[in-house]
Amino acid sequence: MSLREVPSGAIGLLIQELSRLPGIGPKSAERIAHHLLNGDRNQALALAGALRSAVETVRACSICHNWTEDEVCSICRDSRRDASLLCVVETPKDLASFERAATFRGRYHVLGGKLAPLDDVGPDELEINSLINRVRGGGVRELILATSPTLEGDGTALFIANMLAMTEVRITRLARGIPSGSSLDYVNSQMLTDALEGRRSI
Amino acid sequence: MSLREVPSGAIGLLIQELSRLPGIGPKSAERIAHHLLNGDRNQALALAGALRSAVETVRACSICHNWTEDEVCSICRDSRRDASLLCVVETPKDLASFERAATFRGRYHVLGGKLAPLDDVGPDELEINSLINRVRGGGVRELILATSPTLEGDGTALFIANMLAMTEVRITRLARGIPSGSSLDYVNSQMLTDALEGRRSI
Repeated sequence: MSLREVPSGAIGLLIQELSRLPGIGPKSAERIAHHLLNGDRNQALALAGALRSAVETVRACSICHNWTEDEVCSICRDSRRDASLLCVVETPKDLASFERAATFRGRYHVLGGKLAPLDDVGPDELEINSLINRVRGGGVRELILATSPTLEGDGTALFIANMLAMTEVRITRLARGIPSGSSLDYVNSQMLTDALEGRRSI
Repeated sequence: MSLREVPSGAIGLLIQELSRLPGIGPKSAERIAHHLLNGDRNQALALAGALRSAVETVRACSICHNWTEDEVCSICRDSRRDASLLCVVETPKDLASFERAATFRGRYHVLGGKLAPLDDVGPDELEINSLINRVRGGGVRELILATSPTLEGDGTALFIANMLAMTEVRITRLARGIPSGSSLDYVNSQMLTDALEGRRSI
């Protein structure tokens, strides 16, 4: 592949900005830019408006730090959701995945990432203190630590569990095992070990 | 896959607009939206600005119909480029591919698509009349028909060639054969037939 020479001017700038998006290389960026200029240009304006509006209105909920356009998000305001059950996630995107599954009826706390000492992300960079204060404030019965099933995610969960060891709150972690719908052919040894350890009577 | 429920509000609108872009599905749209809100929000504003600016300033060159921010594009204004050699392409994107290859030193004419009777794209929907007038205006020695190597691209080339049959202008078509750098294992019979027909002495 030769180095792609990006055209100058307004089209070049548009291609450059598009190619900074995650998962979009220079070829896709060029295709999208030409598509937007070729077709209905109102689509490009609508996207520009949506970007501006999201940047200007979306902020963190003052309670759970999920994204919201209000002071407090709709989940924290919803009295039908169990306030005694807190699911701790890394990002608003993870929260959105739980909401799509639509099986969790408690509330959330968004950490804003996971502990990563090598990248200089310590407890003060995350919403860990606000979580501890929220739990110490009372009313929480169970904390589900739904950080990612990786070394750093496990480390973050362990750190939070240690901080709350002296409280009465039940602290749990998401189950690990083989993914539903998969074939055992594609399951690695760590998944099998987890699935054996966590086996349940039927 | 279950139906993805798009969140409402400013984030939902942003995801919706992003997922209308070519090659971007709902999952990528969600990932991009969260990336833009999570990181440096100036990136989102820069993209919004680039979209607006491109929509407002980019228009068709009055001579070749390539995209430009001026009345006449930089290629048509460049006196070092051979005005007697016209390369006819379907889109500004095709023109950009030729410019990247940097081997063509003539000028262009952008049709704005190809004849597609089934999609109601006839000669009047394309810049064919302006091409004929440009050629009849004199000064053109050769017309390279670089429409795509498909049924519709070939049909478009044939249509233009017929329209100009009574002129002195030499009309050529891009060579077809096996793509440089490929393996014969992956070449289909049409490519081999083209390559045999177009074989050249070495």
